[in-house]
Amino acid sequence: MFDRIETPSVIISLEKVRKNLEGMAEIKKYGCALRPHIKTHKIPELAKMQMEYGSCGITCAKMSEAEVMADAGIDDIFVAYPVIGGDKAAKALALNRKVRLILGADSLRGAEGLSDAATGSGIVFEVRMEIDTGMKRTGVPYDKALDLAEAIVKLPGLKLTGIYTFRSCLLDGKPTDKREQAGEQEGMLLAGLADKLRSRSIDIRDVSGGSSPTGNYTARVSGVTEIRPGTYIFNDMMQVNIGAASLDECAAFVLATVISTPADDYAVIDGGSKTFSTDVIPGTAPFFLEGYGKIAGHPDLVLDRLSEEHGVIRSKTGRTGLETGQRLMIIPNHICTTVNLHNHVFFEEDDGTTRCVPVAARGKVY
Amino acid sequence: MFDRIETPSVIISLEKVRKNLEGMAEIKKYGCALRPHIKTHKIPELAKMQMEYGSCGITCAKMSEAEVMADAGIDDIFVAYPVIGGDKAAKALALNRKVRLILGADSLRGAEGLSDAATGSGIVFEVRMEIDTGMKRTGVPYDKALDLAEAIVKLPGLKLTGIYTFRSCLLDGKPTDKREQAGEQEGMLLAGLADKLRSRSIDIRDVSGGSSPTGNYTARVSGVTEIRPGTYIFNDMMQVNIGAASLDECAAFVLATVISTPADDYAVIDGGSKTFSTDVIPGTAPFFLEGYGKIAGHPDLVLDRLSEEHGVIRSKTGRTGLETGQRLMIIPNHICTTVNLHNHVFFEEDDGTTRCVPVAARGKVY
Repeated sequence: MFDRIETPSVIISLEKVRKNLEGMAEIKKYGCALRPHIKTHKIPELAKMQMEYGSCGITCAKMSEAEVMADAGIDDIFVAYPVIGGDKAAKALALNRKVRLILGADSLRGAEGLSDAATGSGIVFEVRMEIDTGMKRTGVPYDKALDLAEAIVKLPGLKLTGIYTFRSCLLDGKPTDKREQAGEQEGMLLAGLADKLRSRSIDIRDVSGGSSPTGNYTARVSGVTEIRPGTYIFNDMMQVNIGAASLDECAAFVLATVISTPADDYAVIDGGSKTFSTDVIPGTAPFFLEGYGKIAGHPDLVLDRLSEEHGVIRSKTGRTGLETGQRLMIIPNHICTTVNLHNHVFFEEDDGTTRCVPVAARGKVY
Repeated sequence: MFDRIETPSVIISLEKVRKNLEGMAEIKKYGCALRPHIKTHKIPELAKMQMEYGSCGITCAKMSEAEVMADAGIDDIFVAYPVIGGDKAAKALALNRKVRLILGADSLRGAEGLSDAATGSGIVFEVRMEIDTGMKRTGVPYDKALDLAEAIVKLPGLKLTGIYTFRSCLLDGKPTDKREQAGEQEGMLLAGLADKLRSRSIDIRDVSGGSSPTGNYTARVSGVTEIRPGTYIFNDMMQVNIGAASLDECAAFVLATVISTPADDYAVIDGGSKTFSTDVIPGTAPFFLEGYGKIAGHPDLVLDRLSEEHGVIRSKTGRTGLETGQRLMIIPNHICTTVNLHNHVFFEEDDGTTRCVPVAARGKVY
């Protein structure tokens, strides 16, 4: 199987992808919409599949990702990221003529930039305000959200239609594996804020949160209208580790070849930190992962050290039992940043055939 | 400056590149050749510049990188990596018809694969045996090298012409900042082994080692014929941290924009782990780096946390002083894996103009 595929390569089971899409689509029973984040796959064909499985649109982080998706025919896109600097507001204007575009703002400065770009264009940007619900990255601090909203609604060329947040596995500001409580707390924070904004006559229609591990719980909170999970389409060892997916629900793995067996207790594969992502550090909270990926069928082996093009596998028993030339299937810790390293991936169809698919929005960081 | 460049982007000063190339070329005074590793830049134009500055050829990790460089006109390439699996030996055969190709082998199995491919083709592969001098990844263990060499020389279609190693900042098997001793020890190990091989009538001509931080010392050891540094062309915070380069010798930086200033003590830029590499973990040996890159002109600021498209900058004084829209120049911890994240970079010419250059061999992991 996969004999004709060069290694290292990312292989994706479309059968498992479909099951994962079906599973997440169930949150619609709570009256909540699904707007998946395409950062995980960056592949238009999969974004379209997510639309077929009942998504209301997609989420992107960057305008350049959204451009790739719009060119491929996706017509409802939320760029959930502050639009600051360069030609980004002008690009938003161009994109807005092609698709329903929703933009993020977490500051008056960002909103003003959008307002300036829209003025005189005949376009009114649909804007959602990003709220910090504990992650301390982008997002207006929760207690300053009312003031910012009141300033944004006064700007011409914008319509403030919603609020959104990202925080995933946090509870009371700290990393947690209590996904249900984390999701619920996030939903309550968002829904409560939306009510306060409405009480000030700001017409908040869209209340958007959630992540792959917590979205199912955020979606149940009354007042939450949309979730934006990303990783669930493939899953990875982070999701497995925190109980949000089973190993069998991991739809993507790296196929690698053992290239060297210099000693009994370690062996080397043909992929390192240019093949597997390293943004999740093994052994740190809240994902206490062992090594840089899970080597399928070999519970005694750990992908222990990576250099750029080498992965060193250590045996916990002292004997890897691996042979040079042997191929291994490795589920990465973080599939989003792993796929981002690859120019293309291979889709495995239900009949076992494979085809090479470019990761079209890879490297689209603008 | 750089006003018209979208962020986040990697910008490379060609003036500094030239100085770095000039500096490393000085090792030739020790009678040692320079065969730089192109993993750092993956850009044919820079490989050609390295040739102009007196390199005898280039080094690649993967066959697919070498193909890109050969297509661009580089005609002397060492793929310093075991050739195992897939169509790699067949690709080597094709490449060998175009350029002087040197291949790596660290096992009889690997050498046999090359021998099989060469048999009947009329081609004799030039092969160097990889030696483990303490890094414990690929490379035949030092004490098994004589036996492997004697087995390799018996294989048809191959000519064993050299030995090579990679170990960089290791001394007696442990991470070190003693670059001089590390480089010397490596050179002595290689030169000593080469002599032993010659005493068994194996004609070892090429003795290749070194890295950016240690190459200058490895090159001085009598019997070492070649070094293969990579990072020196750009340098990065690892090189600065270990004393192998000054900040002024860092030729590459990431231009990023502050997109959010939600609090006095932190701000967010538009690049995260899809812009800056994370394979070097801050605060770990032998590079005790602070944060994920050095923010030029702001000694009080630390690039503290990365998510995929967000970089969170923390102020050590409690006030970042940053404004939304402000641009920052950040020298990455590890430039090789950082460039690998980008589809293109910008070259800054001596007159201050910039041009966009594709990272042609990016993602070439086969």
